[in-house]
Amino acid sequence: MLLSILYVIGITAEAMTGALSAGRKEMDWFGVMLVASATAIGGGTVRDILLGHYPLTWVANPEYLAITCLAGLLTTGLAHWVIKFKGVFIRLDTIGLIAFSIIGTKVALNLGLHPSICMVSALVTGVFGGLLRDLICRQTPLVLHKELYASVAFAASGLYLVLLAFEISEPVATIVTLVSGYLLRMSAVRFGWHLPSFHLESDDPLH
Amino acid sequence: MLLSILYVIGITAEAMTGALSAGRKEMDWFGVMLVASATAIGGGTVRDILLGHYPLTWVANPEYLAITCLAGLLTTGLAHWVIKFKGVFIRLDTIGLIAFSIIGTKVALNLGLHPSICMVSALVTGVFGGLLRDLICRQTPLVLHKELYASVAFAASGLYLVLLAFEISEPVATIVTLVSGYLLRMSAVRFGWHLPSFHLESDDPLH
Amino acid sequence: MLLSILYVIGITAEAMTGALSAGRKEMDWFGVMLVASATAIGGGTVRDILLGHYPLTWVANPEYLAITCLAGLLTTGLAHWVIKFKGVFIRLDTIGLIAFSIIGTKVALNLGLHPSICMVSALVTGVFGGLLRDLICRQTPLVLHKELYASVAFAASGLYLVLLAFEISEPVATIVTLVSGYLLRMSAVRFGWHLPSFHLESDDPLH
Repeated sequence: MLLSILYVIGITAEAMTGALSAGRKEMDWFGVMLVASATAIGGGTVRDILLGHYPLTWVANPEYLAITCLAGLLTTGLAHWVIKFKGVFIRLDTIGLIAFSIIGTKVALNLGLHPSICMVSALVTGVFGGLLRDLICRQTPLVLHKELYASVAFAASGLYLVLLAFEISEPVATIVTLVSGYLLRMSAVRFGWHLPSFHLESDDPLH
Repeated sequence: MLLSILYVIGITAEAMTGALSAGRKEMDWFGVMLVASATAIGGGTVRDILLGHYPLTWVANPEYLAITCLAGLLTTGLAHWVIKFKGVFIRLDTIGLIAFSIIGTKVALNLGLHPSICMVSALVTGVFGGLLRDLICRQTPLVLHKELYASVAFAASGLYLVLLAFEISEPVATIVTLVSGYLLRMSAVRFGWHLPSFHLESDDPLH
Repeated sequence: MLLSILYVIGITAEAMTGALSAGRKEMDWFGVMLVASATAIGGGTVRDILLGHYPLTWVANPEYLAITCLAGLLTTGLAHWVIKFKGVFIRLDTIGLIAFSIIGTKVALNLGLHPSICMVSALVTGVFGGLLRDLICRQTPLVLHKELYASVAFAASGLYLVLLAFEISEPVATIVTLVSGYLLRMSAVRFGWHLPSFHLESDDPLH
């Protein structure tokens, strides 16, 4: 129940970031709805396809798709307001990321998969929406450069699995994971924490 | 039967537009066949993966894949002819779009899905081939900017569903949808109708 | 057994080429592991999704994913060594390509599919990993321009099918295909063999 509310918050915030990307590419309303929906529910869709977990969430519950399309369209009118309250959106986006991560972990757990695959499932759920957004909008995928983002999804999933392994009840594990993940991500944003990156300047070595 | 003929016309026309895009990127024959096939049968493939509808059409009927590869290769020789008869191709492409839309609607209907998902299924069938073409060829996805295209697929699907709901027979519903969708799309091309678009000039608000 | 060893060699070599591409885009470690894994096991993943062949190899055997992530990360430290021994990597990459091709053929054969679809399955297994790498890294897909690459996967699969049709035992067919495919690809690299390509200079004919 808590997770459902957080999921709706998450897809709404993600849909709005998707719509802003579409706006920077001067897309039409259909493009806005497509990019908004791909950003918000693309991660869960890729996860379910990879795991063979049918029917997809939004096919069984079309109302989620309606929410993301609507959030995208509203953003076309509210863009300047969204940009002004940037800080709020980073917070909502972070809550969404952790919620997506926990949901991804649970889906893989329920399919009886190995813990490492549960963590990959969390990662895909949290990260691939933004990756799809950047592919469609032809931006360099931000998620591959930014402060801790994918790592937060991965760590949150690991923490959740450890808590369950210690027989902590699911609601408590969910709340502890949410709070810890939120603090980790917001600290990463504030202090500019990021993974080391790999720079290679040589031209075309293998091709 | 009518729908099968229109489907073959549609994949042939779509494969040819895909081959032209590959040619502008100076791809080799394999690239031409890949882009032609992705354009022509990519939409139905994405739809079937999203809906968990196996086996895919071209896996069960490899002759469709042969048609798209062949149409792609023929285009390398006939490119100037294709470009000269541009108007004919826009018409064939439109017929294909409506046929894809009706087929997408029927696939989802047969799976017992919600009408809104049937319309999304039509949209994906009609539009995602062109989207894949533009992703592979690294073009800004045209379908997100162009005159009414996705909207025509969506509207055609809605009309078809309404006609069936009024217990119109399938062949009649198909023909009415085809004619209406064709007229809507050709009017959009002629009069430059398009959805409003969303322009956002600010730099990088959320990232 | 032989094929398993060759598969591991193949995914390791492919993961390293993926990591080099990620390094040229200055991605962080997560990006490196993502691109390495997509390059190495993306082809098999796309194949299994297209054929509805679940569970995916790396979901059932997470150790393969660990290998590709590790190979990717090691490449960040060994990049100059990798580039220096470029010739070795082209050889390993070629062995991987033929192994992927044979594995793709066998997967489709075991599903009872048409020989032409078995060859397409080989092609997808061999080629789509590199295509995903180039899409994520926003490079023009090399596989659509390069000396015989996709064609080698296709030809190897065809040869393997013909050998099986003549009731040659599987291990012998595997070895003959490997040697022939290896020689074909290395000749193509040495002599610059490539498919004809399709150049089209006209602007925007259909859109």
